[in-house]
Formats: sequence, structure tokens, C-alpha cells
Amino acid sequence: MLLISAQEMRQAFPMEEVIVAVKEAYKILAEGKSIVPLRTNIPVKKHNGQILFMPSYVEGIDFAGIKVVSVYPKNVEKGLPSVPATMILVDGETGVVNAIMDGTYLTRLRTGAASGVATELFSNEDAKKAIIFGAGAQAETQIWALLCARKLEEVYVFDVDFNKAKQFAEQMNQNFKNYGATITAVENADDVLPEVDIITTVTTSKKPVFNGKLIKKGVHINGIGAYTPEMQEIPEEAILKADKIYVDSKSACLAEAGDLIVPIKKGMITEEKITGDIGDYIIGKLPGRESKEEITIFKSVGLAVQDVVTAARIYEKALKLGLGKSITL
Amino acid sequence: MLLISAQEMRQAFPMEEVIVAVKEAYKILAEGKSIVPLRTNIPVKKHNGQILFMPSYVEGIDFAGIKVVSVYPKNVEKGLPSVPATMILVDGETGVVNAIMDGTYLTRLRTGAASGVATELFSNEDAKKAIIFGAGAQAETQIWALLCARKLEEVYVFDVDFNKAKQFAEQMNQNFKNYGATITAVENADDVLPEVDIITTVTTSKKPVFNGKLIKKGVHINGIGAYTPEMQEIPEEAILKADKIYVDSKSACLAEAGDLIVPIKKGMITEEKITGDIGDYIIGKLPGRESKEEITIFKSVGLAVQDVVTAARIYEKALKLGLGKSITL
Repeated sequence: MLLISAQEMRQAFPMEEVIVAVKEAYKILAEGKSIVPLRTNIPVKKHNGQILFMPSYVEGIDFAGIKVVSVYPKNVEKGLPSVPATMILVDGETGVVNAIMDGTYLTRLRTGAASGVATELFSNEDAKKAIIFGAGAQAETQIWALLCARKLEEVYVFDVDFNKAKQFAEQMNQNFKNYGATITAVENADDVLPEVDIITTVTTSKKPVFNGKLIKKGVHINGIGAYTPEMQEIPEEAILKADKIYVDSKSACLAEAGDLIVPIKKGMITEEKITGDIGDYIIGKLPGRESKEEITIFKSVGLAVQDVVTAARIYEKALKLGLGKSITL
Repeated sequence: MLLISAQEMRQAFPMEEVIVAVKEAYKILAEGKSIVPLRTNIPVKKHNGQILFMPSYVEGIDFAGIKVVSVYPKNVEKGLPSVPATMILVDGETGVVNAIMDGTYLTRLRTGAASGVATELFSNEDAKKAIIFGAGAQAETQIWALLCARKLEEVYVFDVDFNKAKQFAEQMNQNFKNYGATITAVENADDVLPEVDIITTVTTSKKPVFNGKLIKKGVHINGIGAYTPEMQEIPEEAILKADKIYVDSKSACLAEAGDLIVPIKKGMITEEKITGDIGDYIIGKLPGRESKEEITIFKSVGLAVQDVVTAARIYEKALKLGLGKSITL
């Protein structure tokens, strides 16, 4: 059994490779080569927490796994992560657990890569400017993925806490200086919104985080943060304006994504407004962007298949590089 | 996160303590202080295997966990265990994974202890002779538990493969010499059956493994091996003769235990023949053995709560003794 830390994952597996893995995951899902049972959610009322178990088997690559994700808001007071996670990777051929890795960092990687894949597939190729809403724990890998997907010159960062956005932008400028973009915090997003080619939202907001009136023709939007029927980051106006709306999984998004559920409930759109799963585009079953003017949206709630495929590729790479701690129980 | 090997578990946690932990688990279950979602079963047809995920949260001790158990009959050809398992223990207070341990050995321990608890509670106190059917992977902890529960003088071992039974008995004599019993393989179980005070069956047989006509008054039977509706180790005659039939979980046994399902389907007994859950006896809701002559049966299919409580107690003991490898992912 190989133990792989966040540090080792970072060392072994750049975002460019995570994007390849997540694209593969979407493809496998579209081909029906995976089994994804319902996740199990155990409420721990005593501590205002919940523990989620997300199992899946990806026949396409012959790996299974389970991510244990706990949501404990009170952990912050204890100096612990509020959403600790651990990934257990299982060999599909033998059923033996072959790796355990940091699930929190894995989630950040594969969530960033989701935007990376969509941006690569749907944004205009000459996109130069992007904005990201939210400077929380998921933001770093979101920026990383955007920088991998397009040759950007400017990335703006907005957060309700402007100081947080400033500190974060400074740190990101250092981390990603090789990509050649300037990363800047903005106090008023409306000032730059009319110019940006890509918008990524990564908050848990229950009301839209930008002004849908100000977006330009040809923009691509990644809606990443909202993952419950009550959360809504993308303004309804943007949903209405969109020429294409792709999702990671239509059934999952119709169950969990407020960004789509709310406008459907209000009768503003019907399910038919959703173009379809990104995987179906990848396997050639759906059209992609058809003009430079089209507005495209990608909405993701996160899938267990992304975890297993990304974890499997990290494991294989770690083996090759001799990274990780090998142990026998 | 603490990694605990089978070797370290053996070192830290004698069967006497496992029996205490499993008794506690049955009690907590009876008190309703646990959440045990349905286990998830992923079939891996390609390799003729299946992967089971068994989660639970035990509020009574504030630990959660999940055991990943794979059933891969073809593993034997590869020199791998056919039922590899890994236990992931989660802190109920923070949702953080705090230990990973060998799940195969954990299963053996808690399955042995199930018989241990039942034998301690239901067999006659002056029991001197026991027989165990099956000399497979689960047999060692079964013998260990019997030796802990009663001051036995003779333990007989029967297996369809007599040579296997002989080798196993020799090994057990060495392992458990401190308990003062003589462990002997028998070629014909009928010869000793009329004398034994305790019978434990730990096979996956689809037909009864002993002759129900030959059992004596006052015998206590542990039915441990059969865990599907088709498996049946205990002869119907013994079920009919039994004065009390205890189970680890009535709902689980009615769904999974052929020993009870088959005679119910045949109309030989009704559900009412089952006295009830062992936990309900422990909390004083059910009578126990009421005379030396009564025949008692305990049927167990194994519960996730046993895993979590046993794993939690092992983890605490390992911390105390400084055992296990502490790692940070």
C-alpha cells in the first residue's frame, strides 16, 4: 500500500496531467464504463457534522475507490480543516487497497481540472482575460487550471473580503509566475467584467456573484462552487443568455445544482436548455462552441469518477517516480 | 493518522479485550446509539470479484468508519488473500480519518469475539468440551474466543480435509497452550458430538455440517460461517430442538442467514422461533439460558458496528502503548 501526501501529489502531478485525467474520467462516464453507487451520507448531529462516503468503480481503467469526506464547520475553531478528506484507491483486478492519499488536495486538483477541461474545450482559443470569484481553499487550483487551458494575460480575483483577495492574488502571482499572466485582486468586479473572456465562480454563495448584464459575447463561464439546490453563483440572466450549457452530469446537476434548479423552478428555462454532459461532447455525441460569439457555461458538482481516475493516475506516477511511502499492514 | 498492522493488533489487543469491545458493540446497537447505512456492493464482473463498502457511525463511542472488503476468489491463484480488507477509522468529533488498519485480521478478531460473547453469555458455565467445524482462515480466532469464554479441557477440530484439520490443531495447541486445553483433530465428528458442550461452525457450507440427532442437552451452538441465504451450516433438527435462538441482528439474519431462512421457507419454524438480538439480552430486555438442559443457538452474520467499536478500542490501545506508525498525508 502506497501512502501519498499532498506534498508528493503536488510534486508528481502537475495540473496539465490532472486535466488529462479528468477529461478521461468524463469520457469513461459517457461511455458507461463506470459504476457510481449513491454516496452514503451519515449525519453526526452531536458535532454538527456529516461524513460522506463516495465509492465508485471505473471499469475503463480498472480501479475502484472511495473518498471519505467530512463536513465539519466547527473544525475551524479547532484549527482543523472544515472539510477533511481521505482517498482510498482500490485495485480493480485484486480488490486490494493499493493507495491512500490526501483527499482534500485531490479534491482541489480534480475540481480545478474540471474547469480546466471545460475551458480548454469551450472557451475561445484566443481568450486573454479571466476572472475568478472566490479566494477560498478551491481557488488556487482553479487559477492553475485556467492558466494551463489558455494563454492568459490577466487573471482578476474577486472576493467579498477584498484583503483576502489581495493576499491571495499576490501569492498566486508567485506560485504561477511561469505562466506569464498577471494576477490582480479587484474591488469592483463590474469594472472588468465587460472585458473578460472566462469567468470562474468558486464560492458557496446563495445569490449570484456577478452581474449577468455585463458579460460579453463569447464569454465562457465555469460554475464550480455551488453544489446544493440552494446555492446559486451564476446569475439567471447569464443562464438565459447562454448558447450552450454543459454539465459534468445532468442527473447530478438536476439534483444538486441550484444554478440550474432555481431557474428551472422559476419556469425561466426547462431542462432542455442544458446542452448535455461534457463527456458526451468528448465522445462526439454533442456539438461544442459553434462561433466566437457564443456564450458557453459549464456547471460541475463533482463526481466520484473524477476522484478515482485522478487518484489512479497519481498513484501510477508516484510508483514510477518512487514517491510515496510504501507500507504493509 | 495511525497505521496499525495485523502484527501490532495481535500484540496490543488480546481476544479477552476484543470480547469486551464486541459486547459493547451489541449493547450500543440495542440502545439505538449507532447509524448503520446499507453497505454498498460493487460487482467487478471482469475479474469475478466484488468490492463491499461497510460504513457506520457509532454515536455511543463517537467513532465512525468504513471497512473495504473485497471478495476475489481468483486471488488465491495469485498468492493473494481471497478476501482482502482494510479498515478506515474516523473520529466522530472531527470527521478526520485517525487510523487505518488491517481489515482482514480485524474481521477475524471481531468474528471470533462474536462467538466469545455468545459463549460467555449462553453456554453452560461448566462447559468442558467444544468442537469447531472448519479449519479455515476464521478458525483460529474462533478457538481463541472459546478458550477465553470458558475453561475448556478439550477442543475438537473437524474439517472436510482431515490433514488440514490435523495441521491446524497442532498449530493451535502451540498458539494457545497457556489456556490449558487439548486441541485435537477428529476424522469423524459423530464420535465426539454427543459429549460436546459447545459447537462452533465456521464454514461456508451449503449443507449442514453436523448431525443434529447427536447433540446433547444443554449444548450451545455458534453459527458463524454462513452469511448468505443459500449457506446452511446448522442442521434443521438443531434449530427445531433449540430452546433459545439469539442473533447478532434479527433483520440482518432474516435477510442473509440461510441457517434460519431455509427452515422458515420450509415452514418448519416461523420468525417467532428467534428469541431476539444478543444486544437486547445484554440490556436486559430478553431472558438468557434458563436451565442447564436448554439448547441455545447464536447465529451471527457480522455487523459494521462490531468493526468500528473493535477498531476504535484497538486504536486507543495502540496510542497508549505507542504502537503503530503515525503518518501525516
